[in-house]
Amino acid sequence: MRVLGIDPGLTRCGVGVVDSTGPQKLALIAVGVIKTDIDVSLDQRLLQLEKEISIWINKYQPDVVAVERVFSKLNVKTAMATGQAAGVALLLAAKVGIPVVMHTPSEVKAAVTGSGRADKKQVAQMVKRLLKLKEIPKPVDATDALALAICHHWRGVGNARLAKAKKKASKKK
Amino acid sequence: MRVLGIDPGLTRCGVGVVDSTGPQKLALIAVGVIKTDIDVSLDQRLLQLEKEISIWINKYQPDVVAVERVFSKLNVKTAMATGQAAGVALLLAAKVGIPVVMHTPSEVKAAVTGSGRADKKQVAQMVKRLLKLKEIPKPVDATDALALAICHHWRGVGNARLAKAKKKASKKK
Repeated sequence: MRVLGIDPGLTRCGVGVVDSTGPQKLALIAVGVIKTDIDVSLDQRLLQLEKEISIWINKYQPDVVAVERVFSKLNVKTAMATGQAAGVALLLAAKVGIPVVMHTPSEVKAAVTGSGRADKKQVAQMVKRLLKLKEIPKPVDATDALALAICHHWRGVGNARLAKAKKKASKKK
Repeated sequence: MRVLGIDPGLTRCGVGVVDSTGPQKLALIAVGVIKTDIDVSLDQRLLQLEKEISIWINKYQPDVVAVERVFSKLNVKTAMATGQAAGVALLLAAKVGIPVVMHTPSEVKAAVTGSGRADKKQVAQMVKRLLKLKEIPKPVDATDALALAICHHWRGVGNARLAKAKKKASKKK
């Protein structure tokens, strides 16, 4: 399974592609940051963002797109911009028919580090370890997108285990 | 000039089309509310919204799309949803090459009623008067979209006057 993680933003939008290559084995396929031109109007920036995300989807053909769901810790102005950027990603995935999932930052942190309160550095270190990289992936801003993709793989495994356990339990009854 | 006003929202998105038919003369062309299915996933709701807004744009061929810019008075969760809906409208307009403008609620209220602090009822009454309607347009939720379109017409007139005055002033120098 291939997951495209998207950490939405208008100024910097992190993108990362992670494959599962076997049980609990993950591999980094690509990572980057999409920037939009701060000097153009909002609608044109959203259009730029859509074009760039579209290129990533076409190039890497993910099975799932995972987008960060942001609620808190942001002021309303930032939330609007992040919402707009997330909206573009969600709409695009819906259009091309790729399933989209959203994970909150604490779900991502918990999945990757074991703690929902981990800081950026801890997350980056775990991303490096889980993807067996020599260095923390660059640009650092995109680490969140990779963590998001990893979270989706991990949660997928967790969910599959849970489903299996439930099936087993129901058979015993 | 024809303006499509959009009061963005995922549950209820107000849309209104207003033409300027002469100096300070405005006419209501169409008004409505787009609703998306609350039982489907967010990406599918954004897709529904995009399809519906697209129908309005194709049918009424506006010269300008005016979208409400919301900053405050909302919690972050609502701001995200509104941001996503606004993002869809902005992106769509950018794609079809129609200029988009954003006006804040207080700009709209000030343009329509003369006071940035007017309540919904006062705005609805002025929309009725300015568009020479027998009743407050229904559905009421869409009045904000009409007010937004009126605001854009009014501000356009104001801006044109300002430009003219500036030109005159510069000639005098």
